[in-house]
Amino acid sequence: MTKPYKIAVIGVGKMGGGLARNLAADSTFDVTVFDLSPEAVQACVAGGARAAGSTTAAVQDADLVITSLPMPRHVLDIYAEITPHLAAEAICMDVSTIDPATAQTLESALAAAGHPFVTCLLGKGPSQAESGSLPLFVGGDTAALDDLAEVFACIGDGAHRLGGVAAATTFKLVSNMIGMTNLAVLAEGYLLCKRAGVADEIFATALADTGAWSYQADVRLPWMMQGDYASRFPVTLGLKDVRLAVDIAGQWGLGVPVAAAGMSQLAAAQVHGWGDLDVIAVLKVLDPRSEVIPRAE
Amino acid sequence: MTKPYKIAVIGVGKMGGGLARNLAADSTFDVTVFDLSPEAVQACVAGGARAAGSTTAAVQDADLVITSLPMPRHVLDIYAEITPHLAAEAICMDVSTIDPATAQTLESALAAAGHPFVTCLLGKGPSQAESGSLPLFVGGDTAALDDLAEVFACIGDGAHRLGGVAAATTFKLVSNMIGMTNLAVLAEGYLLCKRAGVADEIFATALADTGAWSYQADVRLPWMMQGDYASRFPVTLGLKDVRLAVDIAGQWGLGVPVAAAGMSQLAAAQVHGWGDLDVIAVLKVLDPRSEVIPRAE
Repeated sequence: MTKPYKIAVIGVGKMGGGLARNLAADSTFDVTVFDLSPEAVQACVAGGARAAGSTTAAVQDADLVITSLPMPRHVLDIYAEITPHLAAEAICMDVSTIDPATAQTLESALAAAGHPFVTCLLGKGPSQAESGSLPLFVGGDTAALDDLAEVFACIGDGAHRLGGVAAATTFKLVSNMIGMTNLAVLAEGYLLCKRAGVADEIFATALADTGAWSYQADVRLPWMMQGDYASRFPVTLGLKDVRLAVDIAGQWGLGVPVAAAGMSQLAAAQVHGWGDLDVIAVLKVLDPRSEVIPRAE
Repeated sequence: MTKPYKIAVIGVGKMGGGLARNLAADSTFDVTVFDLSPEAVQACVAGGARAAGSTTAAVQDADLVITSLPMPRHVLDIYAEITPHLAAEAICMDVSTIDPATAQTLESALAAAGHPFVTCLLGKGPSQAESGSLPLFVGGDTAALDDLAEVFACIGDGAHRLGGVAAATTFKLVSNMIGMTNLAVLAEGYLLCKRAGVADEIFATALADTGAWSYQADVRLPWMMQGDYASRFPVTLGLKDVRLAVDIAGQWGLGVPVAAAGMSQLAAAQVHGWGDLDVIAVLKVLDPRSEVIPRAE
């Protein structure tokens, strides 16, 4: 890695912005950013990054291009735009939550243009992106992954190497598929116990002593009990990830009926107009008139 | 509590037997047991309990009657049989996993005969029953629960007081409903990642760093990976508990679609003839010809 190592970050929203600021704060890296939102760009410039006027200007002499975008189609569009303008030997790294078919399409297209491609899926959320403590789930070109060790150390708190780009992207989607389904059935159980007269604080303490306990219970049960629907992970994004995982299963001819039921609850929350609420809105779906559950603000 | 305190235990299989042996080993208690299996009775006699020739003989001078039976209908049958023969002021405690309607029926019938009734649902499994370290989920007559503090201390590792008998029984069924559904979606995600080329040891380590982690992942993922279907909690019992929880929801007019999907996977495992295997058999349901998953013995 030649220093200063030039990095272009395209898409500096909640996740990409945190990454860009952590990289810009490290003298090892020279960071240029691009985003359609002037506010998002300004928040990175204030943290030491430079602003580029276009995606192609951002990437023109970058050693590493990082893309952080909402949906697979946005990622495909951006790479179609920037690939002809990449510097020789530039590595491309996508940190969006995309599906394995999209990742493999990008890998092939970039390989044809002479660029190694890696996926770096981000665990947890914006606050860990900001503090540089994201769990990272990486896959793709082995030499490029080795080269990027300092980048991973700067933005994250440990990089799990899953294998190829399909393995890493599948893993991330599956982790959200499992987590969101655990959440959906937790909401069902919480509602039944509430109806049976179990007090909230007793439910939480007793559940921790059973085989029902989960990360989602630990983190999201207090929010359910408080009726705190403020979005840490919005329904729209949760639904997107579970849908992509269920789509993969369909493509591969595997049945995932329980995850599909979990997905339907997130879809129901979106249909109710709660797409911007936290994914705990699956609780409101079970009791839309809030007769039993805590009322949202 | 007058000492020695006389306890009758009816049903001394894997769970009831462990309880009876712990109580018999404590000089505070004078324990009489009854079971249709001579081997089960003998294992308690070897531990210091006395054997009774019938349920009615077992309970005739007991201060406390404990019932530990497979299904709600067995519990109803036994109480119909023994209630006329209970000693005055005898407390009745059921430790079977029963539904709230059955618990309330028993509570009313026993109250009419002058007996307080409590439910004491047992967390974890036979090895904790044997070592006296079961999490206990109790509900019912408050004075009786207070009286039984020494009994709970002998058989368990902390008694969570959930409220009435309906609250305690619902809680236990719900905890298994959530746990079994977490397990079913974990199996789906594991299969997808395996198909995507994620190595087992990497899957387990990386998953622990995500919002997908759960008690079931911690305990049962290694068994899935080893293809170790030896029964710690058999499909038949897991299915019974989830079915009872889903039935409650139906009776109360609440939808639990995700748990119902989880139940269907356990039912599918039973239909395949895997009722005596551990509940991780939900993995085999997804891939019955074991093309991707570890093969069972």
